[in-house]
Amino acid sequence: MSRKRFTDMNCPAARALDEIGDWWTLLIVREAFYGTDTFTGFQERLGVAKNILADRLNALVANDVMMRIRPRPDVERYAYTLTDKGRDLLPILVALMQWGDRWVFGKGAEPLRLVDAKDKAPIARMEVTAKDGRALAIDDLRFRAGPGATPDTLRRFAEARAKRRKRTKWDGRQIC
Amino acid sequence: MSRKRFTDMNCPAARALDEIGDWWTLLIVREAFYGTDTFTGFQERLGVAKNILADRLNALVANDVMMRIRPRPDVERYAYTLTDKGRDLLPILVALMQWGDRWVFGKGAEPLRLVDAKDKAPIARMEVTAKDGRALAIDDLRFRAGPGATPDTLRRFAEARAKRRKRTKWDGRQIC
Repeated sequence: MSRKRFTDMNCPAARALDEIGDWWTLLIVREAFYGTDTFTGFQERLGVAKNILADRLNALVANDVMMRIRPRPDVERYAYTLTDKGRDLLPILVALMQWGDRWVFGKGAEPLRLVDAKDKAPIARMEVTAKDGRALAIDDLRFRAGPGATPDTLRRFAEARAKRRKRTKWDGRQIC
Repeated sequence: MSRKRFTDMNCPAARALDEIGDWWTLLIVREAFYGTDTFTGFQERLGVAKNILADRLNALVANDVMMRIRPRPDVERYAYTLTDKGRDLLPILVALMQWGDRWVFGKGAEPLRLVDAKDKAPIARMEVTAKDGRALAIDDLRFRAGPGATPDTLRRFAEARAKRRKRTKWDGRQIC
């Protein structure tokens, strides 16, 4: 997508957004998780224009998030299903839903409930956790350069370290 | 935003996307988590046009995701910091980063590493879990109507139940 030229793409969140951050794209993925798998089904469910839907589905297939299959060789009918890469978007979708429930709808006004198929109990709230299961807030995290850091990213980390030394009290928190 | 008219807004994921699903908006939030808190800082970090940045920051403040403060009454300088609602976006951001690391960059090519401040160990992979901690995939989840379900949402659940009864093998999975 053309957005790539605008900003630092040496960031996994930016690259994830580049593939699935479009408004319609993530709603198509949501529908796929609900079980919708035909062009007509997505169109009816989302009320989206055909050209936009075709464009987004093509991009999802090109990015290997969904695949286009022909379930029955004798019938000219296609289906769109999530790949492993697409199914792995579930934590993002559920994190979005839980945030929307908490901060937009509020307790007692949730449109949906996600429950465990086994015992029909509500699922847990998603949290960032340490390997031992402790919940981590932003102040409990540190960002470090990874093996794929570009020179730009490394320079940014060096700048942040230098800035942190002379930081005033209100000036934010540690980046690395 | 004008997108509201297009689609079912009785969905927490759609409402979350409506507030933070814009490409620049979530990158501004990412920068805020990194510690950036001035207009100039966001502009330099993101390389975003001033009018777009001003527009997105105003929307974030209007939606109570960020707040605009004046740290020193004697200086005409403003800072933007995350509210509780904004800080609660951390699971979404980390889920996006982990997905981008896994599926776009790949193992050994991650630009960043998120580590636990306490022991500098990598954080855990985010998962959808049951209350007892079991990891749940999409097939382990059921969607139910919640207390805030609109008549449209309730009708959709009824339709899905009816459809499920006559479903062919390839036709997707359970919605409710």
